This record gives sequence, structure tokens and C-alpha cells, in this order.
Amino acid sequence: MKNPDPAGIVIREVGLRDGLQSIGQALPTAQKIEWIRVAHAAGLRELEVGSFVPPWLLPQLADTAELVAEAKSLPGLVASVLVPNLKGAQRALDSGADSMLLPLSASHAHSIANLRKTPDAVVEEIAEICRLRDEAGSACLVEVGISTAFGCTIQGRVEPAEVLRLLAAVTAVGVDRVGLADTVGYADPQMVGELFLRARDVVGDKLGCAHFHDTRGLGIANVMAAWQAGVTRFDACLGGIGGCPHAPGASGNVATEDLAYLFASMGQPTGIDFDALLELRGRLAGWLDGETLHGSIARAGLPKTMREALA
Amino acid sequence: MKNPDPAGIVIREVGLRDGLQSIGQALPTAQKIEWIRVAHAAGLRELEVGSFVPPWLLPQLADTAELVAEAKSLPGLVASVLVPNLKGAQRALDSGADSMLLPLSASHAHSIANLRKTPDAVVEEIAEICRLRDEAGSACLVEVGISTAFGCTIQGRVEPAEVLRLLAAVTAVGVDRVGLADTVGYADPQMVGELFLRARDVVGDKLGCAHFHDTRGLGIANVMAAWQAGVTRFDACLGGIGGCPHAPGASGNVATEDLAYLFASMGQPTGIDFDALLELRGRLAGWLDGETLHGSIARAGLPKTMREALA
Repeated sequence: MKNPDPAGIVIREVGLRDGLQSIGQALPTAQKIEWIRVAHAAGLRELEVGSFVPPWLLPQLADTAELVAEAKSLPGLVASVLVPNLKGAQRALDSGADSMLLPLSASHAHSIANLRKTPDAVVEEIAEICRLRDEAGSACLVEVGISTAFGCTIQGRVEPAEVLRLLAAVTAVGVDRVGLADTVGYADPQMVGELFLRARDVVGDKLGCAHFHDTRGLGIANVMAAWQAGVTRFDACLGGIGGCPHAPGASGNVATEDLAYLFASMGQPTGIDFDALLELRGRLAGWLDGETLHGSIARAGLPKTMREALA
Repeated sequence: MKNPDPAGIVIREVGLRDGLQSIGQALPTAQKIEWIRVAHAAGLRELEVGSFVPPWLLPQLADTAELVAEAKSLPGLVASVLVPNLKGAQRALDSGADSMLLPLSASHAHSIANLRKTPDAVVEEIAEICRLRDEAGSACLVEVGISTAFGCTIQGRVEPAEVLRLLAAVTAVGVDRVGLADTVGYADPQMVGELFLRARDVVGDKLGCAHFHDTRGLGIANVMAAWQAGVTRFDACLGGIGGCPHAPGASGNVATEDLAYLFASMGQPTGIDFDALLELRGRLAGWLDGETLHGSIARAGLPKTMREALA
């Protein structure tokens, strides 16, 4: 297991998966490789490079195995992939990925609609994936992300008790890390702080990533609330792409560069070279011509005070 | 003195002043009056309706006295005005405004550039204004907003010690309330929490409004940090207008509707009727045809869970 500095903040760039999966045009593999290399050079140390879903479902992510190989060639970079089922897990193990993320929806309605499985059936499949990983003698980390943890567009309210029950169930079957995701942008800082504190009581130091969408403008405030509750690993997408926004102009995932700015301004190390990250964002804007990029710091620029502190 | 419910959150709508002063086109008085009436009907209880600056300087705010009279005719509405100097204070007293806001820059360079006065010279003028108010036997509240409290585009760093010194100086000369403003969008949640806590040590329950710009995407997170430090009164602009953004597309003030959503989601009463507020935002978009409105909740809509809770 390659583990970034546990004392610092880890921003896991998920744009290559969460961002690109919701964008119609496929980014050529060569540009994805450039993205990976430049992100690594800019100091990012964990990338979700793709998803082992069936290629007919998301053809724009069909090159995931190749991207894992590329990411693994770069020193200190954790190559993470999303895995929807046992078949995908086998492909993840075959690829040599450092970490696989398994989504588990806390909303029964969302789980049925998306996977045609109940949450408990997904927990059983997660148990099988843990066995598969163990039998393979693989060091690949198994991480579960509880989606719709703060509410669901289909079901509406999602009970915190159900989230905590699922967290206990997946830790019992052997997953290494668990995180919470605000899949539809319903969370507020109070919900976030409370649920992450209760999650920590259930899973202890297995508490992993916080994943927020900025759909309703509370993304950064939610990151702060999770951080105050002890979370130090955060998903984000360069340019705030992805996140399935419901309305035209609405933001998707929290923007990597805005998170990097937040923590840098507060003196919390992320290891990220800000100018290099913004340069990559500029390349991405060129590659995704016609797509709206989000985020604030790229438009406004660093404060004079931070520029002076960096110089 | 009309005082909104001290137990709840007060959102002071400053769009009629801070928003309109940075927009080229003048909004007709009739539309401003409509804005005031609809905002009051939507539950807002404090409006900064204009500024008593010389009309040749900001002709779009020349109708401020008329707007004060309109606001004072509505039950429970605090009519607040910005006042740049002694002459403006006299006009504010003549108008019968409930509250006057006096800006005082903590950045020496900003103060010289904007007012051609040092901060200490401004403190002396504030003392004169307090005497003028007292001699007039007026109940008009005198509030000082410390601008550039978190940094300055001209000077760069602003020392917290200087902010605290000025807070002590203005409370010593008799002002009723003091607030802190992040005039250029340099603040982060950590700075905000620390400075407001230290400010409270200096000024106690005279701590007034927090004024944040969303220039770099941290506006809502900064509001949260100030609230956690005990602040319950916040400036905001409908549609996030104003705030002198430096870059094309960059946001200005935090959006009133996003703040209303934040606190409503957390179960903190603001007294605001959300749908009525969004309806007013729609009218504003029509009045300010061609101006970019900001804010997230107006695009994304309330979460299903909140809609159900409101129903």
C-alpha cells in the first residue's frame, strides 16, 4: 500500500472517472495520460483514473486498465478505480490498482434504481469482493463509499441510522476504508459534521474519503465541516466537472483547485503546486472544449498575500 | 430601535447599496421600492437601502432618502444606510434611518487610496458622528464595518492587531455595533473564526455584522466560521451582485438566497420565505438585464427533503 503523508490533507482527484463519466465526449487516452502525469507533477498523490464498468455502458472509460498501468509507473501515486461489482473487482485486481472504490447507496430506492439490488445485497457482494482480494493475496485496498448518505432525489430522506448500519456491515465484512458521499448535493455543514462524527464512532480509523458536490453552493463549507470532524481525505474534480448536476449552470463536484486553495490558505499542507494545478486546468479546458468548468479560484487568482507567502 | 429577533439569524440585504453601486445602470426608484416591499414581504427585516455619498459620485444611489422613508413605512423593517463622512451622517439623521454603517478600512493604504484619510483620521470623524447623533437625540444606531479586515489588494497583509486596535478605538468613541468585512475576498474560515473570536474579546456584545465576498469560493464557508464564532448577523446581496469582483465571471457578495438556504437547511430560523425570495431574485434578473447573477440554490432548487419539510 502506498499511503500519502497521513499528517497532511489528501485530495483525491476523481475527474478522470466522476468527471468524464458524465461528459458525452470521450477524452483520448493520450490526453488522460497527460492529465495523470501533469497531476502527479503538480503534487497530487491519489487519482481515481477510471471505472471497471462494462465498456458498452461507459465507453469513455474503457481504457481504465491502461491508465492504472500509467499511474502505477509514477512514484508515490495511488492508482484508484471505481468498481461496481464482482466482475469489475476481478478486473481491478488484474490491473494492479492500489485501491478500489465500491459504491453502496444508503437509499434503498436509489440502490434499486441504479443497481437493481438492495443495499444489503450490495453488502453481500462487497463481502465476496473482500474474499476475492484476500484469496488473490492482493494488497489492493477495498474502500466503500456510501452514496446518497445525506439524502436522495428519488427517496428523499435517508436515515443516518441506515448509513451507520451499512458502515458497520461493510467494516464487518473486511473493507479497509469507508467514506460518505453527498451524491445529490443535499448536505449542509451541520449534517456533515454530525454524520461524520457518528461514522467515526462506528468505523474508527477506517474513516476514509468525504465526497461532496457543490450543487447548492455548500460544497466547500461541507468540506470544512468534515475536516473539523477529523476527515483528511477529500474527493474533488479539476474544474468542478462531473457530479451529475440537475440544472443548467449548476455546479458538480467540488473543484480540486478550490479545495487546494482552501487548505493552502489555512496553512494545511496538501503537497500541491498551485500554479501547476491551474496550468493543468487550462489544458483540461482546452481538451473539453464546450464543457463548462466551475470553481472560483481559477477566475479570481490567488490573493496577493498568498502570492507573497509562496514567493 | 427596531431589533429583529435576537435568537435568530439576521440576513441584512445590502444589494440596494453594495450591489447597485458597482453596476453601471441605475435602477429606477420605483423598482427599488418594489424590491424593498417584496423583500419585506419575503421576511427580510434589515435592508441597506442606499448610501449618503455625494450624488455626483454615485448617481444611481441619489434616491436614498426616499428609500429610507419607504423602508420605514414597513412594520419591523430596519432601514440601514451607508455613510462615508460627517456630511453623509447628517443626511442619514435627517432621513430618519434606523441605522447607519460607517466603513473604516484597516488597511492604511486602502484608506488613503479610497478616502484620502488615515484610519485614525476616520476614527476621529466617527467620534464626531457619534456626537452629532447624540446631540440630535437620535435613536439611529451607529455601526462601524471594518473593511479589508482580512487583507487588502493594495497593501497585502493587514495585521489582526491593527483590526483589533481600531475596534477598540471605535467602541471607545461610542459606536453601537462593529462588524468585520472581507472586502477583497482574501479570508478563509480559519482566519474568520480566529479574528471574530478575538474581536468578541475586544467589543463584547457590540459585535455586529459579518460581510463576506465569494470572490474565491469561500464565502459560505466563511459565514459558517463566523457563525461558529458567535456571529448571527450577515450581509448578503440577492443574486450575489456587487462586491467589486476583480475578474470576469468571479462572484461578488455572498448571495442572500444561498445564505437563507444554508441556515434553513440547518434548522436555524431566518424568517425568510424561500419561494418569495427566489421570486424577487427573478424580478431582479429582469430589472438588471445583462448583469450576471450568482449563487447556486436558484439554479439547483431546494432539495426534495427540504421541500417535504416545508410542506
